[in-house]
Amino acid sequence: MVEQRKPIPVAEAVQRVIDKQVFSKTEKVHIEKALGRRLAEDLVATHAVPPFDRSPYDGFAVRSADTKKASRENPVDFNVTETIGAGAVQSMPVGAFEAARIMTGAMMPAECDAVVMLELTSEPEPGVMRLKRAFNKGDNISFKGEDAVEGTVLVEKGTLINPGTIALLATFGYEYITVAVKPVVGLLATGSELLEVGEPLEPGKIRNSNALMAAAQIERAGAEVKMLGKLSDDLEACYESVRKAMQEVDILITTGGVSVGDFDFLPEVYKRLEAEVLFNKVAMRPGSVTTVAHKDGQFLFGLSGNPSACYVGFELFTRPVIQQMLGNPKPHLPLEDAVLGADFTKPNPFTRFVRGTLAIRNGQLEASPSGFNKSSAVSSLAATNCLIVLPGGTRGFTAGDHVKVALLETAESSEMPW
Amino acid sequence: MVEQRKPIPVAEAVQRVIDKQVFSKTEKVHIEKALGRRLAEDLVATHAVPPFDRSPYDGFAVRSADTKKASRENPVDFNVTETIGAGAVQSMPVGAFEAARIMTGAMMPAECDAVVMLELTSEPEPGVMRLKRAFNKGDNISFKGEDAVEGTVLVEKGTLINPGTIALLATFGYEYITVAVKPVVGLLATGSELLEVGEPLEPGKIRNSNALMAAAQIERAGAEVKMLGKLSDDLEACYESVRKAMQEVDILITTGGVSVGDFDFLPEVYKRLEAEVLFNKVAMRPGSVTTVAHKDGQFLFGLSGNPSACYVGFELFTRPVIQQMLGNPKPHLPLEDAVLGADFTKPNPFTRFVRGTLAIRNGQLEASPSGFNKSSAVSSLAATNCLIVLPGGTRGFTAGDHVKVALLETAESSEMPW
Repeated sequence: MVEQRKPIPVAEAVQRVIDKQVFSKTEKVHIEKALGRRLAEDLVATHAVPPFDRSPYDGFAVRSADTKKASRENPVDFNVTETIGAGAVQSMPVGAFEAARIMTGAMMPAECDAVVMLELTSEPEPGVMRLKRAFNKGDNISFKGEDAVEGTVLVEKGTLINPGTIALLATFGYEYITVAVKPVVGLLATGSELLEVGEPLEPGKIRNSNALMAAAQIERAGAEVKMLGKLSDDLEACYESVRKAMQEVDILITTGGVSVGDFDFLPEVYKRLEAEVLFNKVAMRPGSVTTVAHKDGQFLFGLSGNPSACYVGFELFTRPVIQQMLGNPKPHLPLEDAVLGADFTKPNPFTRFVRGTLAIRNGQLEASPSGFNKSSAVSSLAATNCLIVLPGGTRGFTAGDHVKVALLETAESSEMPW
Repeated sequence: MVEQRKPIPVAEAVQRVIDKQVFSKTEKVHIEKALGRRLAEDLVATHAVPPFDRSPYDGFAVRSADTKKASRENPVDFNVTETIGAGAVQSMPVGAFEAARIMTGAMMPAECDAVVMLELTSEPEPGVMRLKRAFNKGDNISFKGEDAVEGTVLVEKGTLINPGTIALLATFGYEYITVAVKPVVGLLATGSELLEVGEPLEPGKIRNSNALMAAAQIERAGAEVKMLGKLSDDLEACYESVRKAMQEVDILITTGGVSVGDFDFLPEVYKRLEAEVLFNKVAMRPGSVTTVAHKDGQFLFGLSGNPSACYVGFELFTRPVIQQMLGNPKPHLPLEDAVLGADFTKPNPFTRFVRGTLAIRNGQLEASPSGFNKSSAVSSLAATNCLIVLPGGTRGFTAGDHVKVALLETAESSEMPW
């Protein structure tokens, strides 16, 4: 009467997914639109930084040899040749006992090898700078290339572009940046109990929270969402919708309909598509019915219809595929050590991914369950910024236990952590 | 010859900024556009979750009293009245020794108080369900309100909307969400040495990396950017540009021009505007020349022209104002304990904000300087995801020292941490 499915371990399920080849496309975007995208090419220093020896202060550029005898008792005077503003270059040489007034960031005159800060000088008469101490060769100069040497790879391809990366891209004249194209992820919901968000509640029905939640997860993972509505309760129509959707998107997610109930059509749809089902049961809670199928290089993620199960299934299986398509060599959630902040007494034979809230106490990660914890739970998801990974077994866990947590709200990623 | 400025401590400078009142505006956005925005109203459970007693499994709804005598030796048969799919409601009562076939998520028939999982039943003849064990009242029911009680505030206003919040908003029918309007932050660069990102390098000049970097920081902080170009080198024109810009934006950032050099016009511009200068020197490195002025409820941030100094000044002073305008009650960067991962030997009398890279080792935060560390540094910024806060003093710091770090790439925020 009931199909028996064999659960496989989480690590094996994730491995089966990421073993499949994915394609990556690149495009050029303007630097003002590049934040949060992933570099598809190494960021190379196209010139030295600074590009020339420059003054880090407002002051005077001098030849240090001329300052050697300067002291409080024996001040030395310099004739000021000109003022070199930032962006300007010297218009005349600086000779013996001459100085050029120089602004922060301005290029050093060729003859000078030190900068004297303005506040260490006086002006006994117009056009004359008086100095009361000696300076050494190289004092107060920002040297060409001290920050970056031409040709250096400063940021590797696959890296997420943050504000600092933008500063570098601008410095080196990358006006249009080659980034990974965001894969388009389609979302199809199943479930005759589902109302749209704008509809009033009816007896026996609930609003479709999974599709909008998964859309936000897709966006957080760096991909583009295509909302494709709801699958019909008719197998034939269902199959046609999925087949058509696959032509419009790079990845297709369905929510619900992967269980073994009478109205769960997805298993039959995969069969008709002749898609390879990578697994349809994972030894995990929530989300054990998560199904992943693959057909001609395209992924079909059959996520659970339960909100928490759907959420976890996405982060464990769909996110890494999106990240791989974005060229991220570390496509997984970062898995870190943490201390459990509260008891979690309910044992389970399967690996449990408890929706958790992370805190940092004295520099140490501490994770506590976010709240109500059933696969159907929705209220705890808003406070969730990590998944607490509790290995399967017969015992519960108590506050203070050392556990692993997968971080959700971070720009970091990880190599295969399971 | 040189204006003497009195540096004030970082904490005092930040306090002077956040003590000023800011306005917050709200708007409605569609739920599909709400990720990453901040709630301007509490998210209240508009109904119980689940909204009715429902079945968490595929199985049969029964009256537990009828199962009491069921055992392996004495199986009990039930007549199946109907099938209740998810989204449907019962169409007839369930009497003694009757059962309704029920799908996951479907509403319980009023007369039943337990669910029997499908796999624990057999079908001796069509329309009959056979059971070999007893069930208790309440077994396998997801009770109305067990996840959330109607009227509960589930997420407070001011909170960042994440995928879990979206799930809740959808559940409760919030199709259009009241969120804080993103403040518009204008960016004006000063510096005759600055080339646009698309221009070829020239002797003495560098490309303007600050404006694009700050634009990305503004976006990361949740605000909108308005690029306003470059200020002229003429005081009069400069004043006019700033005055005009202030009418177009909520917050105005200028980069460069706040020092005491001959071409630093901003101090004079603030004077002409009759803006209140909250401070023009902070006891910090980099960014000591950071200036913040305030006029008729509007902030003018005069950030340094040096990339690292500009970066730090933004995160310490501008970000909290943006966050306050977004209604975030915790507007500051989170400050956490960490272990220093590498030596930083250069002492400084001022508090130092070293651009750092955070790692987690055995659940413990570890922060290391990102690289080249001058206020003019740009290469280290791409690897920066925290600021290592080193108190001023005469000594350097060594690997293993306990330090504070301000986290940059996190959805978390903090109350006044300085």
